[in-house]
Amino acid sequence: MPDLPEAYQNLRSRGREIALLGATGGLLGWDQETLLPPKSHGFRAEQSAQISGIAHRLATAPEVNEWLSVCESAQPDPLTAEGACLIRWRHDYNRATRIPTSLVEENERTAGMARAAWVEARKKADFSSFAPHLQKLVSLSRQMADLWGYSNEPYDALLEGYEPGWSTREVASLFGELQPRLVPIAEKALAASPSFSRKNLSGHYPQAQQEKFLQSLLPKIGFDTASGRLDTSTHPFCSGLGPHDTRMTTRYDETDFTVSLYGVFHEAGHGLYDQGLPEKELGTPLGQAASLGIHESQSRLWENRVGRSHSFWKAWWPDLIHAFPDLARRSWEEGWRASNAVERSFIRVEADEVTYDLHILLRFQIETRLISGELKVADLPSAWNDLFLKLFGLKVPNDSQGCLQDIHWSMGGFGYFPTYTLGNLTGSQLWQAAQLDLPNLHSCLEQRDYHPLLQWLHQKVHAHGRRYLASDLVRHATGKPLSPDAHLSILETKVKDLGSIQNS
Amino acid sequence: MPDLPEAYQNLRSRGREIALLGATGGLLGWDQETLLPPKSHGFRAEQSAQISGIAHRLATAPEVNEWLSVCESAQPDPLTAEGACLIRWRHDYNRATRIPTSLVEENERTAGMARAAWVEARKKADFSSFAPHLQKLVSLSRQMADLWGYSNEPYDALLEGYEPGWSTREVASLFGELQPRLVPIAEKALAASPSFSRKNLSGHYPQAQQEKFLQSLLPKIGFDTASGRLDTSTHPFCSGLGPHDTRMTTRYDETDFTVSLYGVFHEAGHGLYDQGLPEKELGTPLGQAASLGIHESQSRLWENRVGRSHSFWKAWWPDLIHAFPDLARRSWEEGWRASNAVERSFIRVEADEVTYDLHILLRFQIETRLISGELKVADLPSAWNDLFLKLFGLKVPNDSQGCLQDIHWSMGGFGYFPTYTLGNLTGSQLWQAAQLDLPNLHSCLEQRDYHPLLQWLHQKVHAHGRRYLASDLVRHATGKPLSPDAHLSILETKVKDLGSIQNS
Repeated sequence: MPDLPEAYQNLRSRGREIALLGATGGLLGWDQETLLPPKSHGFRAEQSAQISGIAHRLATAPEVNEWLSVCESAQPDPLTAEGACLIRWRHDYNRATRIPTSLVEENERTAGMARAAWVEARKKADFSSFAPHLQKLVSLSRQMADLWGYSNEPYDALLEGYEPGWSTREVASLFGELQPRLVPIAEKALAASPSFSRKNLSGHYPQAQQEKFLQSLLPKIGFDTASGRLDTSTHPFCSGLGPHDTRMTTRYDETDFTVSLYGVFHEAGHGLYDQGLPEKELGTPLGQAASLGIHESQSRLWENRVGRSHSFWKAWWPDLIHAFPDLARRSWEEGWRASNAVERSFIRVEADEVTYDLHILLRFQIETRLISGELKVADLPSAWNDLFLKLFGLKVPNDSQGCLQDIHWSMGGFGYFPTYTLGNLTGSQLWQAAQLDLPNLHSCLEQRDYHPLLQWLHQKVHAHGRRYLASDLVRHATGKPLSPDAHLSILETKVKDLGSIQNS
Repeated sequence: MPDLPEAYQNLRSRGREIALLGATGGLLGWDQETLLPPKSHGFRAEQSAQISGIAHRLATAPEVNEWLSVCESAQPDPLTAEGACLIRWRHDYNRATRIPTSLVEENERTAGMARAAWVEARKKADFSSFAPHLQKLVSLSRQMADLWGYSNEPYDALLEGYEPGWSTREVASLFGELQPRLVPIAEKALAASPSFSRKNLSGHYPQAQQEKFLQSLLPKIGFDTASGRLDTSTHPFCSGLGPHDTRMTTRYDETDFTVSLYGVFHEAGHGLYDQGLPEKELGTPLGQAASLGIHESQSRLWENRVGRSHSFWKAWWPDLIHAFPDLARRSWEEGWRASNAVERSFIRVEADEVTYDLHILLRFQIETRLISGELKVADLPSAWNDLFLKLFGLKVPNDSQGCLQDIHWSMGGFGYFPTYTLGNLTGSQLWQAAQLDLPNLHSCLEQRDYHPLLQWLHQKVHAHGRRYLASDLVRHATGKPLSPDAHLSILETKVKDLGSIQNS
């Protein structure tokens, strides 16, 4: 758009201002999860609300609409980068202007306080102390959904914030296809599982040794450690706080090094995506992640397809037994089997790859009903426990291992959970496509050469930022629309492999 | 002012918004010093500049002037809290509006980049790589000083930012009185010193043991560890990031636990002041520190009057030898003497109490000449080295141990250094007054009861915030204007005590 330099440049500059504020808000949040003194949560909630409010005001100022209109009147080709940016910017502007800044601030402040209350409630397995906070957050989300607007149900409007382009019905239909095909695979795996439990790897793995190993692993898979950090937190996460500030956290279990190992593989998958976004596009949609589902596809791919592979265990075995002498009494095949053990468990973040999506199906059912009003906050624990029994055949012992386990609802993050399963399916579908595109992939991984894979992901996913909707990005990268086929086929093969090795 | 509730409330609210932004900017800075990935300094500089710019715009908006004028027209009694706040607010507003927001942002951005360059330059003792940054910062400070205005010299306008009410001439005159009286004391101490060097305490003191001891010490002296943190950084500092978020850093030397011990005593003195500011006044001058000199008086008092006292070493000796078994071959008197050893040294932050102010006198002379233009940036190293030789009789081996040692200039902090000596003198004068007011002070300290001292400091200093100018606060608290008398008398007695014990 050579005739529209000024309005377009103004949009870019404004986007950059908002991105800077986003990074600052991100640091406030990161610090809250990792370091903040306990008595300071109220003040921090005010700080976060203020930054969100300033960013919202900048995003919804009338001049943004003027700049957009000037650019749109030139009817730019939507297939160009500029045209695509304008479509995303217009979408963001329209969505943001539908809610007042005061509501953004109130939601942020409420979430800040709720998060602190949730930490305490979870410690004491005391849902009742968290319930009033959750009630407020549900009401605020519902209020925002009504303002944003939706065609079928309020949850649509929340989902749109995390996974643009997907409706509740579409997710329900995809999950409805997944569940009956996943359950038999899970049952088969569960039946075979006890003989290669993760307990087989138990030993003494001092945290310092784990940290040292992980710091040596990260650069090998392509993570730039001068542009990021690895810290400790109760709930592992990854925050992109700027083009050269990708912060991951993990947690350590000194009897089981795979907790931090797969935690870091997962977060590094997110981190590699953040580090792969084009730096010069910071502030435009091209410098942002496509969606949470696409983000999760990266973390899951690195965690499960790379980290839990034959090739990883075989190629890294000498390093692993050097770092963790207690492992030496085992073989790499046992390590590989144990890291893929399937078990029924209460906690989502500890779940194996096969049963993981059942945890998401449960949360999706619960939160759509919370938002529609069909399920009352007070009835959440019993609804959770009933559904858990149905899906997993286990009785939830207390709410800390049930409906209080995840941070998401305490942050008002309704609509977030389904992106995990979308990410799982997408990760597997990308993996299948990468194998077709890179015939040498397997031998590269066996030689610990992760560069071709990272390059492929960069070209197919990272480099595009938010230029395409997630569904289009998947279609471009894999040649077909998202379906559970690739994921189920991969799981099926893996369960078979594990079984046959076990029986051999 | 019951008739002016609205304009006054508006000023309070605006002040609170600015304080929140200040805390957020403070976190950006704290994180930069402690955790930021190396490649992210440029981006962080942009973030800090943005937050400073937003705060400056809020502070200088025309409505602030209107609110001030409405309140002022009611001619409030300047002896009331509200009247005092209005005087400070008016001062701040007038000063802030004299420089454009763009200059504030440019200064912040330049400082952010300069700080990263300084870290590298200091590592390599390469002044030339830092010089262009310093040149920019000197020019920017000079530009701001010219806009702020001054009666005698541009440095006045910079000093006003750190120590309101003090002029360059007044500082020069006070320092001129101090120097000729301090030098003979220092010479006497230096002559006696070698026999009780800090090396006498050398041993193996694992960092974890030091951390544990410090974490037990902090609550005993009244620091609320649930409203603050202690972390590690190359350059120890304390940041008040909110009413319940006081963050101190220290550094560890595993052969000398007194490095972290006195680092923490010092920063805790700052921290106790921050924690003692009235929380409900956040955003008004009553919720802010009076000046950097007053801040430093607290850190110096806790570090030198409490931490380096007979009573500390005697009362804490059982705990110290329990924490640090290598100490057991020494006596508490030896510990006390070693912690008070006087030595000529290149590095300010490692200097003993007696020679410390000579380091400040040097910096004051240098920076006033840098800002007046009399000294060129290129000539800084030689000017520094010449003056150092004159004051300390030592030849500076390289710029890392000379003019590159401190962070202050890399942050554009010209006018900051004299506050250290003002703080030293103030701390001693407060200490003398506390001894008169609290006849049992000594026996309390011998029983490790720090409450009466902290209460006295709270009443006399902390609780007033920035209600009074520093010079008035000192007069109210001690009954006389600030002079070097108390400090010199304390040093003289201490040097005599150390000498007599040594000879006994």
